[in-house]
Amino acid sequence: MTKDILQMKNAPASDKVGRYEFLAEPFHCDCVGRLFLGHLGNHMLNAADFHSTARGFGMSYLQTINRAWVLSRLAIEMKTMPRQNERFTVETWVESAMRYFTSRNFHIVGADGVTIGFGRSIWAMIDTQTRQPTDIFSIGDGAINQWIEKDKPCPIEKGGHVKMPDGAELVRSIDTYYSDVDINGHINSVKYIEHIIDLWPLEWHLGCQVLRLEIAYVAEAHGGDRLDFWRVDTGPREADVEVRKNGAETVCRARISFI
Amino acid sequence: MTKDILQMKNAPASDKVGRYEFLAEPFHCDCVGRLFLGHLGNHMLNAADFHSTARGFGMSYLQTINRAWVLSRLAIEMKTMPRQNERFTVETWVESAMRYFTSRNFHIVGADGVTIGFGRSIWAMIDTQTRQPTDIFSIGDGAINQWIEKDKPCPIEKGGHVKMPDGAELVRSIDTYYSDVDINGHINSVKYIEHIIDLWPLEWHLGCQVLRLEIAYVAEAHGGDRLDFWRVDTGPREADVEVRKNGAETVCRARISFI
Repeated sequence: MTKDILQMKNAPASDKVGRYEFLAEPFHCDCVGRLFLGHLGNHMLNAADFHSTARGFGMSYLQTINRAWVLSRLAIEMKTMPRQNERFTVETWVESAMRYFTSRNFHIVGADGVTIGFGRSIWAMIDTQTRQPTDIFSIGDGAINQWIEKDKPCPIEKGGHVKMPDGAELVRSIDTYYSDVDINGHINSVKYIEHIIDLWPLEWHLGCQVLRLEIAYVAEAHGGDRLDFWRVDTGPREADVEVRKNGAETVCRARISFI
Repeated sequence: MTKDILQMKNAPASDKVGRYEFLAEPFHCDCVGRLFLGHLGNHMLNAADFHSTARGFGMSYLQTINRAWVLSRLAIEMKTMPRQNERFTVETWVESAMRYFTSRNFHIVGADGVTIGFGRSIWAMIDTQTRQPTDIFSIGDGAINQWIEKDKPCPIEKGGHVKMPDGAELVRSIDTYYSDVDINGHINSVKYIEHIIDLWPLEWHLGCQVLRLEIAYVAEAHGGDRLDFWRVDTGPREADVEVRKNGAETVCRARISFI
């Protein structure tokens, strides 16, 4: 996270920016009372859907026309995490939209009104029958364009391309079950975040917090797929992780760093 | 679930009864759009904490005096499950309190105001330093007694004692990690529910819904423990499950039935 964050004044909310308050529920917090990053990610996805639903392009509407948003990339950078029972706010807005991708940003604000983190995400829209990308501008005659907010800052880097260098090791394999599968029939995006963070032992997390996680979703996995986690440490508190399904195809790649 | 449920009028709320609205978030729903039972369980635990916090005996206060509520038994019986994006209500109240155990009930109401299920739970209070049971009446000079609601109906059976008959098979073993451990340092109560339900394949869940789950928590497991799941089918849509840790000690026992 850049040092700008500490100095940055929270921009005034506009109707292009959605603001949603969430509670760091006790059982969504880790053994030292911090909200799990996976649950934060889930709240960010909820905020994205609340924001898009209120503006006419949410998931429920898209389902009626055989369309769905698919999360392609997500980056989260946190100075601190919400604490147990803290009410924090997720702001979200569309930074840009192209025919096949849209970029949505997040600003996470603690109960005291101070910035605690930011997020960036990239989404595609697919036809749920053909599973092929479709034209985002076809929804409401390009309606998304009226909601683009270019001026609100999001001072974290965009996600880079994580390529797995030589030396990655297969560190864990897990099976997937009913509870891992979402309404779209795929392994839930947030489950990957949980599994990746679980590659570090409990004791590691007592002294460390995730500073930044970026994850690129490459292919969909389904219930019953076996997921292999390949990891290479790129520094004392940094690693790249690649998840493959059924011994072969890449499902997602992530880069993680801790403080 | 007894047929009384369909006829029962929702009792008027009193200040002994807490009512809390929750959203069946899209990513908390299964592949056919029903809220996962584990997430429902989490909302019930949240409702319990909201209710007890508002009345002076919530978890955050207890932490300050080295006390904690420990869930001993939970039974959930559902006619239907909340659907994706449905706003449903969890009512909760204390049915009885004794020195070492208190009984708390739940009534789950769909968005249209119709009863969709009930729950029963038993809680102990422990000293977080000695891990021993402590006197519930020592909090606020027996304050819990003023919140007991005996008249609100909860027309589901109390949990029975699940004993594992001969013939149980070891059907799965899983390792536990950072994400499984809650603020008390134990494996999260809700995680057991998820793992137990995952013993049935995805295809089973497409045609079935959990009618009733009861679970008795016998001992605490910790991050890093390996959990063994022993199952015996007691009918075409019924089973008993016992979870043991590290190849030996019983952690919890559950009885589950599907419709």
